[in-house]
Order: sequence, then C-alpha cells, then structure tokens
Amino acid sequence: MTADEFRRHGHDLVDWVADYWESVGSLPVRPSDPPGAVAARLPAGPPSEGDGFAGLRADLDEVVLPGMTHWQHPGFFAYFPANTSGPSVLGDLVGAGLGVQGMLWATGPAATEVETVMLDWLAELLDLPARFRSTSTGGGVIQDSASSAALVATLAGLHRAGGGAWRSSGIGGTRYTVFTSTQGHSSIEKAARIAGIGDAGVRQVEVDPATLAMRPSALRAALAADVAAGARPAVVVATIGTTSTTAVDPLSEIGRICQEFGVWLHVDAAYAGAAAVCPELRWSHAGLEHADSYCFDPHKWLLTGFDCDAFWVADREALVAALTVMPEYLRNVATESGAVIDYRDWGVPLGRRFRSLKLWFVLRWYGAAGLRAHIRSGVSLAQRFAAHVAADDRFEIAAPHPFSLVCFRLKAGDAASEALLDRVNATGRFYLTHTRVNGAYVLRLAVGAPQTAESHVDEAWSALATAATEILAEG
Amino acid sequence: MTADEFRRHGHDLVDWVADYWESVGSLPVRPSDPPGAVAARLPAGPPSEGDGFAGLRADLDEVVLPGMTHWQHPGFFAYFPANTSGPSVLGDLVGAGLGVQGMLWATGPAATEVETVMLDWLAELLDLPARFRSTSTGGGVIQDSASSAALVATLAGLHRAGGGAWRSSGIGGTRYTVFTSTQGHSSIEKAARIAGIGDAGVRQVEVDPATLAMRPSALRAALAADVAAGARPAVVVATIGTTSTTAVDPLSEIGRICQEFGVWLHVDAAYAGAAAVCPELRWSHAGLEHADSYCFDPHKWLLTGFDCDAFWVADREALVAALTVMPEYLRNVATESGAVIDYRDWGVPLGRRFRSLKLWFVLRWYGAAGLRAHIRSGVSLAQRFAAHVAADDRFEIAAPHPFSLVCFRLKAGDAASEALLDRVNATGRFYLTHTRVNGAYVLRLAVGAPQTAESHVDEAWSALATAATEILAEG
Repeated sequence: MTADEFRRHGHDLVDWVADYWESVGSLPVRPSDPPGAVAARLPAGPPSEGDGFAGLRADLDEVVLPGMTHWQHPGFFAYFPANTSGPSVLGDLVGAGLGVQGMLWATGPAATEVETVMLDWLAELLDLPARFRSTSTGGGVIQDSASSAALVATLAGLHRAGGGAWRSSGIGGTRYTVFTSTQGHSSIEKAARIAGIGDAGVRQVEVDPATLAMRPSALRAALAADVAAGARPAVVVATIGTTSTTAVDPLSEIGRICQEFGVWLHVDAAYAGAAAVCPELRWSHAGLEHADSYCFDPHKWLLTGFDCDAFWVADREALVAALTVMPEYLRNVATESGAVIDYRDWGVPLGRRFRSLKLWFVLRWYGAAGLRAHIRSGVSLAQRFAAHVAADDRFEIAAPHPFSLVCFRLKAGDAASEALLDRVNATGRFYLTHTRVNGAYVLRLAVGAPQTAESHVDEAWSALATAATEILAEG
Repeated sequence: MTADEFRRHGHDLVDWVADYWESVGSLPVRPSDPPGAVAARLPAGPPSEGDGFAGLRADLDEVVLPGMTHWQHPGFFAYFPANTSGPSVLGDLVGAGLGVQGMLWATGPAATEVETVMLDWLAELLDLPARFRSTSTGGGVIQDSASSAALVATLAGLHRAGGGAWRSSGIGGTRYTVFTSTQGHSSIEKAARIAGIGDAGVRQVEVDPATLAMRPSALRAALAADVAAGARPAVVVATIGTTSTTAVDPLSEIGRICQEFGVWLHVDAAYAGAAAVCPELRWSHAGLEHADSYCFDPHKWLLTGFDCDAFWVADREALVAALTVMPEYLRNVATESGAVIDYRDWGVPLGRRFRSLKLWFVLRWYGAAGLRAHIRSGVSLAQRFAAHVAADDRFEIAAPHPFSLVCFRLKAGDAASEALLDRVNATGRFYLTHTRVNGAYVLRLAVGAPQTAESHVDEAWSALATAATEILAEG
C-alpha cells in the first residue's frame, strides 16, 4: 500500500468511524442472527491475490456491522461499559502507525517514558498514595486487563511469601492461599489457577449481606485458620466496586490485617477506580495507602478504548524481581545501567505496544475537568434511574449504588425478573445483563457509554415498567 | 470530541502517519538522548482543562519522534522485525472505532467469528495440519505475544499431566517439569515461573553445536531421567526458528518422543512461522502434525502490526477445560448452548479487542501472493548479506541462515566483534543486536522491515566492512 493509498483509504475509514458513531444509536444494540451467520458470509479461504480495498469496505457494512454487539450504543447497559472516544482512537491510530515495540527502554525510549509519565499523571488525577509514583519507590504500567493485573499481583505476592524459593522452586509443596470476598472477580480465581495455587487455594471471605462488602473479621479468621493449618497466605485481593454490584471493601481495616500477617494486598478497582477523579467519590479509596498494588481500567469508564488497565505497585523492585528473566539477546547498556524501566519485566508478555499514547491524548483533550464531567454524568444518570425504580413499588433495589450501576429486581421473584430481562433485551433498543445477590436473580443497569443521555435512561425505565406490567398480568 | 472534530483530526493524523513512513528512513534509527529526556519534555501533571489538539500534534513531532527507536526504519536489523503495513493500521483504526469487547461470543459475534475464520485462513495459508482448524477438533486464537502463547500451552500441558488434579489443587507437591532446548526462548522459562513450576523445573536440552537444533536423544534421556526421579514432565517446547540464530528443532523425532511420554508438545515458531506461507520453506514445519499447540507472530514478519500472535491447539476442549471459570454475571444463553466459542477461555485476559480485523485487512490486501513476495524478499536480502560476509575472510558466518536472519562475527574474536557492533550502531543509520553462539559473541542482522531494500543491506555491509578495517587496524 503506497503512502497515497494509505491517505485515501485512511481518510475514508476515519469518516466511516465517525458515521458509525453518529448512527450507532439507531441500530439494534445486539444482532439477532444465530451463531455462525457472520462466518457464513466470509469466503472459506484467503484470496490468492490481493483484491483491493472496495470489497473490504463493503464487507464492513455487510458482514461486520450486522454481527456487532454495539458497546458504544447509548442503550448499552450490560456488564460494565467499555467506552472509547475520539482522542483515544486517534492515539491508537498514531501508535499503530509508529509500530514501535517497547519491550525494553532501549527499544522504545519514548514509548517507555510517556507510559511512566502518564501513569504518574493518572496517579495524581486519582490522588493515589505517593508511593505508587515512579518518583517514589513504585510506579505504574499498562496491562491489557484487570485479569492480567490480578495475575501479576499474585506472582509478586508469591515471590514475597516464598522468601526467594518461589522463583527457583515454584509452588513446590507449600500450600499458598489467596483471599478475596465472595464478590471478588472471577479473574482472581483464574489468576490463582494460572499461578499453580489451584482453585482450592482460593478463600472466599464472607461479606455483609446488606453492603456486600468484605467482613474484616472474617478475613482475619480465614488468615489465622490457614496459618494454623500450615498453609501460607500469599495475597489478599480487596475490591473497590465489585463486578456484581459495585460493593466497596473496607480497605483500612483490611490493610491493617494484611500488614499484621505480612500478606500482599492487591486492590482491584477495575471499574470504580475511574470515580476517584472526582474528589466527592474518593471516600471509596480510603485506606489505599495500605495496598501493595492497585489497578483500574481507563478502558471501562474513562473514555479510553480497550485495552488499557492501569496497574501500580508500591515497590517496583518486588515486581521486577518476581518477573525478570534475562537472556543474552536482550542484554543492553541502558538496562545494565539500572537507570531505566524495562516494562517487559512488569507483566507477562515480552513485546509491548505504545498504548500510553491514547491515554495521553485522552488526558490532554478532556483535561481533569472533562473527565470529571464524564464520571459525574454517569453517576447522575444511574441515580436518576434508581429513583425511577424506587418510586415503583413492584420493584426493589438490590444493592447500594454509589457509582453508575444499579441492581434491581421485581419483588415477584426470580422467574418474573428473568422474564423482564429477556423481554427488554428483545426490543433491541437496550442491553442489560444480570447477576445474583444473596441468591436472588437481579438485573444490572450500568451506565457509561459516552452517548448515553437522560432520554436513554428514561426510555429504558419506561420499557422496563411496561414489560413488568405485561409480565405481572400474565402471572 | 464531535464527529466533525474527529474527522478533521483523524484525516490530519492519517497524513501524519503517511508522512512518517515516507521520512522514517532519513531519521537516526535510534535516539541519542540519555534516559529521562522524553519525560523531561512533558509537564509534571495532567492539564486541569482540555487544551485542544494543536499542542498534542506539535508534541508528536517535538517530544515523541526524537525519542523513538524506529522499528519501521529500513536500517532496523535488530532483534526480530516487528513490521506493520497500511492495511494493518487501517484494520486497527476500525477496530478501535468499533470499540467492541469480545470476551464472549454474545458480546461480540462478529469479533469472535471473524477471528475464528481468519485463524482458519492463516492455517490454510501455512498449510498447518487439519486438526488445528476450527472445523476439526482444534482452532486458533489471537494472543498478544508468543510469551502468552507459551504460558497458555504450559497451562494446558499441566492440566493434562495433572489428570484433573491441577485445576483444583494446583502444582501441589508434584514436581512438574518443562523441556526446551538451550536455545529456547526466555518466555518458556518465564511461563514456567508464572505457572508455579519454578526455574529449577525447566530442563534445557542440549543442541547440536553446528545446527543449534535440539538433540532428540538428549530430550529422550532428560524425560526418562525425570520420570525415573519421580518428576512429572508436562510440556516440551520445540522451536522453529530460535531467537538467537533461527535454528529449527527436528519436530518429527521430538513429536514421537512426546507421544511416547504422553507430554504436551508446543511448537514456538514466533518468527519463522511466517515463512510457511512459502511452499519452498515448509520443510521447516515437517512433523508439525505431532504438535498439541503451535504459534507464530504475524506481527513479526507478516505485515501485521503488534500485537498479533496466532496460536492454535489441536484439541480446543483441553485448552478451555484448563482455563474456564464461570461466574454468574457472565452466564448467557449462547454459551450454555455449547454452539459458540468464548475466546475469554482461550487465554489470560477476560476482555478482548477486535484484533482479527487487521489480519483480515492484511490477508485481503496482499493475498497469498503478496505475503509470499514479502517473505521471499526478506530471505533473499538476508542471503545477499550472507554472501557479502562469506566473501570477506576477516568474517565468519556463525550459524545456518535459512530465513532472514544472519549471524556473523569477526574471526579476530569477541572484543573486536563487540566493538564492530558498537561502531556500526553509532552511525545511526543501522541498528543490529547481538547474541552468543557456543559461547562466542555474535552479531545478528535480521531483515524484515517493509521498506528494507538491497541498497540498505549493501550499505550496512559496507559500513560493517569499513568499521572492521578500522577496528582491526587499531588492534
């Protein structure tokens, strides 16, 4: 592809993306085709000769769009948002064009240093504890997801708990254990499995049934029981904003207990961390000074496209010691000087993209004020929706909703609530998902797509109320 | 950012990328600034208000470019290439704009199905064994890197070797071991460490000193010794195209030995796998029908930007069984039907981008013929360079060079060879790296950047020959 062809097709596709954003709200939020429909529209094998651009361009409209679940749709209320924005996409475009592979400082000085500075900027924006800054003993790094952050934190915790033996001898016969609440994310169990601890080494600590937050006394008892039984607690994962209901674990008390037992404390704020850009929501992060590591996903609720998980450690040397392996072909003067960060030692993959560009673009375009406005809009829309629910006595709110997720159900029970979800999703105008709270089936409405406005939340409520009337009438 | 602002800035940045590619050959391939220079050009904290686009645009030229190691530079001969291309960047642009998160089929039917089909297309293009196709028992998936592929293969191997106990009890007291040659990539040791096997559980099998390929007899002896000692071999990683010298392990013999011992065979062809698009280079893949998993990196030598590692398994159920964890909030009808692929169960992260778009764009734009031409160009340029080296009796070739990497040294020894590397890299026109072969210091020249032509290879040789004259004269 010549430079001129790239310019022409590039301008065309920039316009295609802009058109998509302008029209996405009028499309069904989910496709109705059965599995296999997209694959059936593709040829069975690759072309033997290049076939130009027109066919590809047409297939974006005819093959891809009809098979999309539209995460940027203003009626997308499922899971947690995975929002993006113009500046984020442009940062990704520049990063892809530069094509740098920043595994070492030497292979990408700008990629490395912009990442370090952007994570320091983010730490300032969220008012994270000083020791997470690169100018102190810690520092930040971009991971693909909070799953990988949980894995890396688990490995650092094992390295600390193993006292040097873990790197060389692995898990061996030691019964390492990992602790999170019953509401902790599935990635914590997955990280423990990957790290060789096994599912049976994961302790699910009970929560307060009203707040769904971890009970510190239960954590202390579980840690003490393991120690008494000869197991070796390695990591506690506390959550700010659980996936199920956005519960907030009490970090101050948990932190003091971790310190007492000498256990690595990782704080998973994948979704709700973004809220800390707003001073009035920083109560959720009280006690974070006890954490050894912390992560949140700008790609969920901070206008930065997937993938961009921001992960910090308080002691960068502990992380690097757990993960570094140095073959001859990667040796270089800068690394040996000790004066640089080689981000390959901060995560699983060796190779790395220039992902901090999109973060830089987003932070500069919106500024702190613009990001706060985005968060406040999401919180406000969710509270508006919760008020609708609370005012209708056929419904009940199922959990506290301090951020932009509201969990609710029909008082008539699980079957009616499940039918409600199916009926509203079948309209194609909205997409909600579900969870279980204290055993009961619960609908989740999560606000965060950049185009979602009051009208969309009101329409969703209207559709829910109408469907509830039908379902309750049908008995 | 409004749609119109996105169009305007997007067109401008597409042009910026095109200008970059047109001018990159005239820039120094590496920056001369010391560590910290890029960071020093950035403000200490984020802006409180958004500051528009002009400042960002200027900083790309004034902050980023002067700090770049230019992987797309025609004189970039370091490590392995990490090439990209116009169609790849455009595929990434569209993927970023769509902003879909394809963790489950249900959350991204098009993202999931295009990925499945593209991996089948690639399997056809490389003539991979039938059982790696999704239409058989296997299938492919995009991982970020060969490091993650090695980790996932290790986990599947542990699941098989543990006979069900690994998922629940982890490593426990079992002494699992992993085998690769002394030339295997450092990511294999890193994967073993992450998986809780520990560095001491990695067996580095000796190689033939002339070919640097694994000795099957040594592998058999190492496996038998472990079994006799009560250890449990879990994974053998064979390599097609080692990082140090592109040595090719004898897969047929290794495969039969793995079968005999019931051990998972993973084949790491991160760099050289791309060569299999050319029928005349498929000798390197002979015996692949014995493999349980295989990966190569289109982002290294197949015109697809980082990150895009293509990973296949022969038995997809073994992989999913090792990795799946199902919380309530991810349950959905499509998954429970068993009729779909949920790629979250094929790797570490839960969230996933629409990375198959760039692969689709590349395969359609170039076609099989265009990709073969790219590989053949790289091989031909490397052989041209090797002929220069072979014709100068001050130099010696240090290893076989069937692909696009040439390893060579000055016969005068390690100090002279190291001085040669430093001097040529100091010109700023080329960037080569080094390795050690049988203990000796060796320079590596790897061809693969799309703009590299005969003139660049000839100029590199000319600079090396001139520098050698100086160094040998200086004694």
